[in-house]
Amino acid sequence: MPKAIVLNDKPGFDNLILVERPLPQLRRQELLIRVRATSLNYRDVEIVRGSYHTRFALPLVPLSDGVGEVVATGDEVTRFKVGDRVCSTFWQRWVAGPFEMAEPSYQRGGPRDGLLSEYALLDEQAAVLAPRNLSDVEAATLPCAGVTAWHALISEGGIKAGETVLVQGTGGVSLFALQFAAVSGARVIVTSSSDAKIDRAKTLGAFSGVNYKTNPNWSDTVLELTEGRGVDHVIEVGGPGSFTQSLKAVCRGGQINVIGYLGGTEGAINPLDIFRRQVRVRGIPVGSRASFEAMVRAIEANNLKPVVDRAFPWTDVAEAMRYLESGAHFGKVVLEHGCPSSAAKSI
Amino acid sequence: MPKAIVLNDKPGFDNLILVERPLPQLRRQELLIRVRATSLNYRDVEIVRGSYHTRFALPLVPLSDGVGEVVATGDEVTRFKVGDRVCSTFWQRWVAGPFEMAEPSYQRGGPRDGLLSEYALLDEQAAVLAPRNLSDVEAATLPCAGVTAWHALISEGGIKAGETVLVQGTGGVSLFALQFAAVSGARVIVTSSSDAKIDRAKTLGAFSGVNYKTNPNWSDTVLELTEGRGVDHVIEVGGPGSFTQSLKAVCRGGQINVIGYLGGTEGAINPLDIFRRQVRVRGIPVGSRASFEAMVRAIEANNLKPVVDRAFPWTDVAEAMRYLESGAHFGKVVLEHGCPSSAAKSI
Amino acid sequence: MPKAIVLNDKPGFDNLILVERPLPQLRRQELLIRVRATSLNYRDVEIVRGSYHTRFALPLVPLSDGVGEVVATGDEVTRFKVGDRVCSTFWQRWVAGPFEMAEPSYQRGGPRDGLLSEYALLDEQAAVLAPRNLSDVEAATLPCAGVTAWHALISEGGIKAGETVLVQGTGGVSLFALQFAAVSGARVIVTSSSDAKIDRAKTLGAFSGVNYKTNPNWSDTVLELTEGRGVDHVIEVGGPGSFTQSLKAVCRGGQINVIGYLGGTEGAINPLDIFRRQVRVRGIPVGSRASFEAMVRAIEANNLKPVVDRAFPWTDVAEAMRYLESGAHFGKVVLEHGCPSSAAKSI
Amino acid sequence: MPKAIVLNDKPGFDNLILVERPLPQLRRQELLIRVRATSLNYRDVEIVRGSYHTRFALPLVPLSDGVGEVVATGDEVTRFKVGDRVCSTFWQRWVAGPFEMAEPSYQRGGPRDGLLSEYALLDEQAAVLAPRNLSDVEAATLPCAGVTAWHALISEGGIKAGETVLVQGTGGVSLFALQFAAVSGARVIVTSSSDAKIDRAKTLGAFSGVNYKTNPNWSDTVLELTEGRGVDHVIEVGGPGSFTQSLKAVCRGGQINVIGYLGGTEGAINPLDIFRRQVRVRGIPVGSRASFEAMVRAIEANNLKPVVDRAFPWTDVAEAMRYLESGAHFGKVVLEHGCPSSAAKSI
Repeated sequence: MPKAIVLNDKPGFDNLILVERPLPQLRRQELLIRVRATSLNYRDVEIVRGSYHTRFALPLVPLSDGVGEVVATGDEVTRFKVGDRVCSTFWQRWVAGPFEMAEPSYQRGGPRDGLLSEYALLDEQAAVLAPRNLSDVEAATLPCAGVTAWHALISEGGIKAGETVLVQGTGGVSLFALQFAAVSGARVIVTSSSDAKIDRAKTLGAFSGVNYKTNPNWSDTVLELTEGRGVDHVIEVGGPGSFTQSLKAVCRGGQINVIGYLGGTEGAINPLDIFRRQVRVRGIPVGSRASFEAMVRAIEANNLKPVVDRAFPWTDVAEAMRYLESGAHFGKVVLEHGCPSSAAKSI
Repeated sequence: MPKAIVLNDKPGFDNLILVERPLPQLRRQELLIRVRATSLNYRDVEIVRGSYHTRFALPLVPLSDGVGEVVATGDEVTRFKVGDRVCSTFWQRWVAGPFEMAEPSYQRGGPRDGLLSEYALLDEQAAVLAPRNLSDVEAATLPCAGVTAWHALISEGGIKAGETVLVQGTGGVSLFALQFAAVSGARVIVTSSSDAKIDRAKTLGAFSGVNYKTNPNWSDTVLELTEGRGVDHVIEVGGPGSFTQSLKAVCRGGQINVIGYLGGTEGAINPLDIFRRQVRVRGIPVGSRASFEAMVRAIEANNLKPVVDRAFPWTDVAEAMRYLESGAHFGKVVLEHGCPSSAAKSI
Repeated sequence: MPKAIVLNDKPGFDNLILVERPLPQLRRQELLIRVRATSLNYRDVEIVRGSYHTRFALPLVPLSDGVGEVVATGDEVTRFKVGDRVCSTFWQRWVAGPFEMAEPSYQRGGPRDGLLSEYALLDEQAAVLAPRNLSDVEAATLPCAGVTAWHALISEGGIKAGETVLVQGTGGVSLFALQFAAVSGARVIVTSSSDAKIDRAKTLGAFSGVNYKTNPNWSDTVLELTEGRGVDHVIEVGGPGSFTQSLKAVCRGGQINVIGYLGGTEGAINPLDIFRRQVRVRGIPVGSRASFEAMVRAIEANNLKPVVDRAFPWTDVAEAMRYLESGAHFGKVVLEHGCPSSAAKSI
Repeated sequence: MPKAIVLNDKPGFDNLILVERPLPQLRRQELLIRVRATSLNYRDVEIVRGSYHTRFALPLVPLSDGVGEVVATGDEVTRFKVGDRVCSTFWQRWVAGPFEMAEPSYQRGGPRDGLLSEYALLDEQAAVLAPRNLSDVEAATLPCAGVTAWHALISEGGIKAGETVLVQGTGGVSLFALQFAAVSGARVIVTSSSDAKIDRAKTLGAFSGVNYKTNPNWSDTVLELTEGRGVDHVIEVGGPGSFTQSLKAVCRGGQINVIGYLGGTEGAINPLDIFRRQVRVRGIPVGSRASFEAMVRAIEANNLKPVVDRAFPWTDVAEAMRYLESGAHFGKVVLEHGCPSSAAKSI
């Protein structure tokens, strides 16, 4: 019988257990996929730890992001065929258009079962052909981090060649934003606590970098690097602590994309500063399947390669999550699902 | 010699004095206008009081907003002719496009001399034909308050029939927003501290209203009025104090336009709430001449009438400013410039 | 057993026959609706006559547009409940976003069975709550004609109060365009071959009208009515014959929405005229479900009433189609489905 | 006295004569520039030949496009200083926003005098800082050809990484479009009558090319190259003859930018094909100063180099125009203005 890992009865890395589960019955518009690789997001770690803002019913198969091979299709499936390699989408029912189209109750990895398993079902409307130029491990990184960066800079931001983008840190979303901005002809400035990471970001196409540890008022440096104009786009993942600097580093009329809170959730700003700086601030909720598909075309046309920090065997998910928590990574942390168990093979 | 009122040597209502000034020489792309009416904005009051965030060189002729008749044109003027009735624009050089086109050093009423005078010069690029259906007193209200509301809801907000708009209070910007939203087929909900003002707003087309004095958690009422969905657009003029309620009253993906701080400038929000509510927040800096011209077409096509609370003789500007400070008004406070002094007539 | 009308074995009004059909089995994300009313579009007539550009497999239940009451729901339906009154969408899988999201093989009335029946199944993603302020007959008019007008003027056109719209004729799409433009604060000019129809259009909110029979160069009149500026939007349903006039009647930078060919399909333009007039021309393919939902909000908020020319019993579909062909109508031609047959009642 | 070349009393290359002209007086918002280089557009050739759709008053200094050094500034100039190197803009008064902001009576090279002279005056609102990474000869190519390509693909087209662009031929606009698309992460397919030119286009970043001489139905090849999807954007400079192929080569919902008519002006299409292919077609009228400034940022950030085919001495303008007429060029034909005449030096 095929295997899956579930968060069993209460939060905690120790409650991730390997179980055997019968394959669910395939329905008319669904795909059965053999999962090849999954990737970790902070949301997944928070859900397993129990620190996520919502509690989901347990047991729950974790992880929203993954890639697999279609091994069977429901009798009305038109978008895919057996043998296709597909990624899951985060908002299973947000096909296109504005965010209000998203239906939260259809998210994988909570409240719906995720992809940390040998096999999974995907509605064909919630799947996207994986970029042909990517390995499984690379393709598994796309659904949240890649789509979030694309949605912020391209779908919402309408980035243009010649603009400047400030990217905070070197986590998954930030490195995707760096790559998408660079391939769009924009200049990227990266902040990091590590000069070594800034150097690696430059090899990915960053124009310049600022160490925010050694330059707490890093917006001054950003203004210098932009000849006083400020940046057009900010990928704000630091939380309230970095927001004040971001407001100083952005140009008049510029855009701040609020995505995360890696520096903590506490802090405050005066909303009048948004008025005084005449900027646009928006929350970025990953993105639609249409954004995902547009991103895939960009990845293929430009042979972009997602930055994978490290791949673990999928059964070492707890260790991989602890590694992500440590903050030592540069890019995405991925799980390889390898060959299915023999029970599964006998289907 | 024609007369003007200047803020003489230091801030304060008492330092507004009537002076005689020679008419400046008309240059090739300029219009000489006889000012017919001007209107007051909080910015003007702050500049005169000395509480504005910037201090300008004195003496200064106050007031950015006004309407006048073209009495002479420079030899290269092509946009207007003698006899035209024109309004001034707030950002004298922001003709069209995004905010970065604005050049702050060209604002009237500070740093450049304003329109509180019998005659004034306007660059032809900084003037707009007044709506034919409006009186002088009505047309004088448009340059800041009208254009701000138009820019927020239409130029930036792309308002559509069937959407819902939350308008805070019944000052100039808010009543214009109410009228523009209503004529665009949107539903408007007004907040006010006065039930009587809410009733007057309804006669202007508001769908409903909430008394924020008697309902401090007024976002609950707004959610009820929108069947739990929240509003699509917020005209946020209250400042940090009302922003928290606005964040609760707006729908997912909705838009908050940060325009003013009538409730005070102190207060704070956690920027992560912008992320969590997945909304878009932007500062609204009045708008471009192109927005002004589009607004004029809408005012004429729909015979909209700006709400004028009260008109004072222009030499009673100090009294008019004190009245605006009192908060008793509903709509705009205007100054009538009447007939020019005899000295001016002899030009 | 419930009844349906099918185009049986070859095109022709005489080949529309009433048949009994077992109810299909309800699947997990589907709605079973009792059809209350349907409406006719030229496409439906062309399909039945055999003049449509595509031939579909027969027998086929015609008609893409209709409204019905949900009488049963699949076990995973989340968007609707029994008792809801829903309209069908034309592109069953175009949920939101740009046109490339549409999947032609899912259109109702060809290639998929349409709604000319007592009962029908709808995927819950292909249904929209009918506006509460409309009767069944009114609601049945929306899926093609209403959504086409909305998509052209609002979703694509971004219409603003104060703009001017040229609407050709008084068919379904044109009258919806008139109503949506008027409620958005725009001015509408209608062309017609009948002064009486122009007068009726004015009672619906048209600003003015031109009789194209008596004024073959009607663009001259339109330019006069717009003080030489031209209109911002054209709803072009006349075909190649009227396109040349439309190109003259539109303002520089204006928009022409190519929707139909009521005046015939033959004719030609020089594409350089699009360049010389610096206009935007686009083909309008009905619209997405998101556009439909936005339109419903506008209809409810403004209590708009679709213009129904005449309602026939649903079994008189051939007569209704001949009436539509005659061109005598003003607004939509609708079919009332009345009470279900007794066989159906026994489900 | 400084020199200029004028089209003297009637059209014809032979009527281009070198004259001495006193320097006009500098006015308050003007720049006096020493012209360093100019470039040719077909419009210039048509004006000189007399085949342009409009006749201008003669004598006329030809050429709209050029770059020069600011040698003096009017007393109210704020945007530039002596020593700056500036390009002229084509629509001298289209600062930003939509095309309706353009005022045709202000175009250089007709009706206003152009830049084919040693010195010229520019309104500071009609000038843009030349990209720092370009030579004079390169910078002179930008005002029409560069801005047209930018406006079509970026300002109007909103090009995104991963999209596909069809570029017709290898003239000025087409090669700029190729470069801007490539630097934005898009794939470019070039059509040409010459395999050698296609090869050169590939060295500039084109993904592929089609020889339209040997493949008259070149849209078939384009569809193959895009796996049947078609291109997202077409740069249509061929005129009516190529438009039919473009309509077949574009994807559903795609964009065709109608810019020129190098293949002649005769021909016709049925506008219903725009409807049937559900595409967007628009005329491209060069672009605004804001588009120019955005383009400059992109050129600097990516160190793009315009393709200059050949530079002539400015007094050889007739020969240069005949060369442009021949169609032998690949990229732009430029005139070098060299050192001013001794008379000019003595100012």
